[in-house]
Amino acid sequence: MKLLDETSGRETDSSSHKHKRRNQVETIHHMTRLPADPWKPHRHSRLFAKGCLLRLRCCLERVCGMEWYGYAALGMLTAILSFVMDLSVTKLLTVHQWLYTQLEDNNLLQFFCWTLYPACLCALSSSLCHNICPFATGSGIPEVRTMLAGIEMPNYLSLTNMFTKFLGLICTLAAGSTVFLGKVGPFVHLSTMMGDFISNLCCHVQATKEKKANGDMLVVAAAVGVASCFGAPVSGVLFSLEVMASHFATVNYLPCFFSVVCGALTFRLFSVWSGDEETLEVLFKIHFPSALPFLPMEILLFALLGLLCGAVGCLYLFLHRCMLQFTTTNPGFYKMLKTEKGLYSALVTFFLASLTFPHSVGQYMASKHTMKQLLTSLLDGKQWTSQSHNASVQLNPEAVLEWGSSGCPVYLSLVVFLLMKLWMMVLACTLPLPAGYVMPVFIYGAAIGRLLAEGIVSMFSTTGQKWSSINPGGYALAGAAAFSGAVTHTVSPALLAVELTGQFSHVVPALLATLLANAVARSGSRPSFYDAVSISKRLPHLPSLMLAHPRLLSTQVGHLLGVRTVQLQRAANPQEVQHVVNTSTERQIPVVDSHESPILLGFVVRSELLTFLHHCRTAESVDQHLEDICSIHSAAALLSPHNTIQEAYSILSLAGAQTVFVTDRGRLLGVITWAEMKRILEDSVKEI
Amino acid sequence: MKLLDETSGRETDSSSHKHKRRNQVETIHHMTRLPADPWKPHRHSRLFAKGCLLRLRCCLERVCGMEWYGYAALGMLTAILSFVMDLSVTKLLTVHQWLYTQLEDNNLLQFFCWTLYPACLCALSSSLCHNICPFATGSGIPEVRTMLAGIEMPNYLSLTNMFTKFLGLICTLAAGSTVFLGKVGPFVHLSTMMGDFISNLCCHVQATKEKKANGDMLVVAAAVGVASCFGAPVSGVLFSLEVMASHFATVNYLPCFFSVVCGALTFRLFSVWSGDEETLEVLFKIHFPSALPFLPMEILLFALLGLLCGAVGCLYLFLHRCMLQFTTTNPGFYKMLKTEKGLYSALVTFFLASLTFPHSVGQYMASKHTMKQLLTSLLDGKQWTSQSHNASVQLNPEAVLEWGSSGCPVYLSLVVFLLMKLWMMVLACTLPLPAGYVMPVFIYGAAIGRLLAEGIVSMFSTTGQKWSSINPGGYALAGAAAFSGAVTHTVSPALLAVELTGQFSHVVPALLATLLANAVARSGSRPSFYDAVSISKRLPHLPSLMLAHPRLLSTQVGHLLGVRTVQLQRAANPQEVQHVVNTSTERQIPVVDSHESPILLGFVVRSELLTFLHHCRTAESVDQHLEDICSIHSAAALLSPHNTIQEAYSILSLAGAQTVFVTDRGRLLGVITWAEMKRILEDSVKEI
Repeated sequence: MKLLDETSGRETDSSSHKHKRRNQVETIHHMTRLPADPWKPHRHSRLFAKGCLLRLRCCLERVCGMEWYGYAALGMLTAILSFVMDLSVTKLLTVHQWLYTQLEDNNLLQFFCWTLYPACLCALSSSLCHNICPFATGSGIPEVRTMLAGIEMPNYLSLTNMFTKFLGLICTLAAGSTVFLGKVGPFVHLSTMMGDFISNLCCHVQATKEKKANGDMLVVAAAVGVASCFGAPVSGVLFSLEVMASHFATVNYLPCFFSVVCGALTFRLFSVWSGDEETLEVLFKIHFPSALPFLPMEILLFALLGLLCGAVGCLYLFLHRCMLQFTTTNPGFYKMLKTEKGLYSALVTFFLASLTFPHSVGQYMASKHTMKQLLTSLLDGKQWTSQSHNASVQLNPEAVLEWGSSGCPVYLSLVVFLLMKLWMMVLACTLPLPAGYVMPVFIYGAAIGRLLAEGIVSMFSTTGQKWSSINPGGYALAGAAAFSGAVTHTVSPALLAVELTGQFSHVVPALLATLLANAVARSGSRPSFYDAVSISKRLPHLPSLMLAHPRLLSTQVGHLLGVRTVQLQRAANPQEVQHVVNTSTERQIPVVDSHESPILLGFVVRSELLTFLHHCRTAESVDQHLEDICSIHSAAALLSPHNTIQEAYSILSLAGAQTVFVTDRGRLLGVITWAEMKRILEDSVKEI
Repeated sequence: MKLLDETSGRETDSSSHKHKRRNQVETIHHMTRLPADPWKPHRHSRLFAKGCLLRLRCCLERVCGMEWYGYAALGMLTAILSFVMDLSVTKLLTVHQWLYTQLEDNNLLQFFCWTLYPACLCALSSSLCHNICPFATGSGIPEVRTMLAGIEMPNYLSLTNMFTKFLGLICTLAAGSTVFLGKVGPFVHLSTMMGDFISNLCCHVQATKEKKANGDMLVVAAAVGVASCFGAPVSGVLFSLEVMASHFATVNYLPCFFSVVCGALTFRLFSVWSGDEETLEVLFKIHFPSALPFLPMEILLFALLGLLCGAVGCLYLFLHRCMLQFTTTNPGFYKMLKTEKGLYSALVTFFLASLTFPHSVGQYMASKHTMKQLLTSLLDGKQWTSQSHNASVQLNPEAVLEWGSSGCPVYLSLVVFLLMKLWMMVLACTLPLPAGYVMPVFIYGAAIGRLLAEGIVSMFSTTGQKWSSINPGGYALAGAAAFSGAVTHTVSPALLAVELTGQFSHVVPALLATLLANAVARSGSRPSFYDAVSISKRLPHLPSLMLAHPRLLSTQVGHLLGVRTVQLQRAANPQEVQHVVNTSTERQIPVVDSHESPILLGFVVRSELLTFLHHCRTAESVDQHLEDICSIHSAAALLSPHNTIQEAYSILSLAGAQTVFVTDRGRLLGVITWAEMKRILEDSVKEI
């Protein structure tokens, strides 16, 4: 196999490669000649092991760049994480179901079993977050989006957070369809943490001094996160492409797909080995009739469904925004959410569970189904109410056993499900635990589609034969795509729906419905679900902040620059340099003509300053000047103080510059780094 | 329905909307009160019609922004174009086939019918290009890529070019599998021309004075072009995303999908209405056995196939580069290609056709099949050599009637096909006519996959039952994806293959094979097919030029700046302004402190200069200064002369700036616009 690492940069030529390789061999020889240390025994074995490892690294790097192993590892580890999580959740759900069945003769005990089990799990999940890592709550996608824009948020990438989020998410998912929460968002976050970890590891292994920007790995990780949830490679990449950033670099396209395919293969192979499946297949095995997927006229119905989903999506987003507003402004509520997370989660979950209890309202909501069963039953290719000869309506037994269990018509069950779940979903969003919000809206949308289709079937069952033979599963699929598209302001759910079920025949109707739902949901520049969370959490994410505070658009950089920046004059002496090195932590330090006329010349890198100081010390010469020894690099781009904050943001995020210098007629006014940008954004939110 | 137009910018608030609407109504009243013109009769009817049209515009704009109608029109028109083209090509192919069958009793006449028909068509196609528009030759994707980067190439977007390319492509495609050329590339080009046309139309209808940057429409058009060829919406968007630019703006994602879905719906509805199909379905109706798509162990075989396709892809690219080198350096050849395009095409096509003549080598190459039939037969889900009980090999009659027509084993046919078509494809690439090169490599890859799978089946047919039941269609699919991925350096063909056939079960194997093929093909930073064409045509496309001339990477902007740029001093008087307006055509003119100390202050817009001159003329005051009346805008970003050409390129293409100013310590050195960048790139290619 050949060298893969050149695909990203393409700059490396073979001569520099040979040079690198020679260096590596020298390093091995050098490092295997370590001095003896009496405190560490078995020196020879250790040296041998070290030599072996270094040779292994050489061999690995000969095949392709270290980052490609990182991408592969990322995909596989995330898939394993996903598989382990699914397994644990299934076991926990089975235990609950078993317990519930065992208590069949005592309704009261059944009630407590039904309600307390999820309440305890949610309380545990919240307590984990409260006590170990408060940054683990919520979906994580808004935070990941902010990090991908370039702003560093180390708290959200710690290993503690990963541990908390993983355990917490298992508890949340094990609470089942009662709390009606999903897996995607937290999994993207988990995958990002994994990506950051692997990126650091790659840097260690490569023994590069300077830490490379790990943005690429995070972009890939976001794609892998979505893909691993469902074993859906293509829509994983597309969803992350759409949600995560305003621009997608095409060089990340190949790594994304590489990592995602590694993940999908691992995920499915594990399913095969664990005996769940015979071979690699889609997650939801649905079979639509393939001879005639849909009539051309049905396109209009799909369009109508899209508009409907868009409207309901607007309603959901409105309720969600109101709820967010309430939780942040109501003092009592706010305090409770801050201090008594566990108690709050337990109470809310108990309330939700008592409603879904199968002997109360739950019987009209198919509440015994797990999330996966709900989706499978809604997407079923057969009509729930099939027509028999004597015109009486018969239920299709396999699929709707649960939906029709109360004895009332399935329409009624669907209507109750839709009415109840709408506000229950909004309430569940306030729970302070790791949870995803894509899967619930996906299922909700499927229910909308199903209701529409079953309604049409029963309306036309007596009159025309043509309309009564439509496939309600297709509408459920399009509805799921359209509603989740409307809520997240994305188009990719259409492909996700198709990929989850493997029904490619419905890709155009699903896309059409999703586009129309998006058109309705985006009208009036309302924020998406993630934007609303971002604004409510006051994350320094410019695109969503601008929706809430349009004044930010016209704010000029000049007004927001912080205190006078650290700078060096061209002829700086060692003392000045020492002072700058001590006071500043920036990696790029601007160099001006002189302090009197601060005309910007360029910047010096911190490491060169240290070399300069070292040189001065060894040469014992105090009259050396900065410009004699350090090379002054030219800045990638300059801004004037009249540029808007958005322009500064896009230069930082697109041009790949670490530091942008603000000059007025050549004079240095200030410096904008990502840290500075974060401060500016956080300040401007506070002001408003 | 609500306002869609705000999704792109999100800046418009409702108050400005009302204002706009009032303005529109006033415009209508104003415009319907036109003075009477004796030369134009029926004044009242005209006024009435005009009023109606203006009211219609108002109504349309109330629903969503004009550009959304443009996107819809683009999708639909391209789909209609594609449909008309397919129809004409089918008719022309049928005529050829009919004629050939009629002459069945005379081999010589059959030979002339077989060879002269395509030769004449190709000669016609070339002559059209030669005489009407020489820019219509070739695929068009390299040129579209260059235009999408921001460089203007008006010749490639003219209506004449569109006409020539459309007619020429019909002729090329009607020459059939003899010349073995496809449709995708030229169709992307056609779609881009259509996009440019519609974009201009939208500007006219909106009555906006300044022409908006039509980059968005071109990005959408490129996606629509790929999608309309196959009725494959998702992979169309992905392919254009991957091939076209180094960054993809997420705001274009929704328009792309919107336009593509409009196109896909139109394309498929036309198929239904024309009676070809009963409903909306995939283009290649293949049915793989769905119970067990593939065994987990087969993953290794798919990986092997990927590596194989990568290696063959490298060989093909190498031959193609050699051929390009030969055609541009050999003087006789070069002259013939310049002056005798028609003759050259006729000769080459005659030569190719005489080889594919079914009574010569053609009988071993299934040459009677059209391109579509070739692909359908290769992708067939059944094994060609099915095992009967007495261990004698039987042919599966339906699919391989043509492949086994010569009586020799189908393997031999496949091997001959692969060996012959490799150099025939390379030769066909030199033909100076509108032609696509994706479909041929797609079919070639399918043949590689088929050969591998059939070989394995026959190897294991006697020993193990397990391997002998594999589905060769799946390998053909993965092979097609992998080979076209290797040649174009993209991953999207994997999804294209899946979308064309509707077989979602094979998405992971196809992706895996494509990724590995890419790894092999991209190693050693070899150029892709499009890069090679781009380099050979000396297009000003930086990413591909850098592959050929790595020295460009480190070239500094300072060395490449042109003659002293036009500039204005702050206190410029009307005469100076008049001079600048007369001599320069730039839209942004830099303003400096004074000519003696050219410290850059910002820029003024050309239209403001005209206003300034108008004001001076009406006020009859000659002592007005520029800064009193014009507002000086701050530049979006500045560069220093030490920045590399790549940095300038990325600032131009990413930051959305029209002009980038180069300053040294605040002093203006020069200006880089796209026109300037084009000149720099073209110059630097000539130098090297």
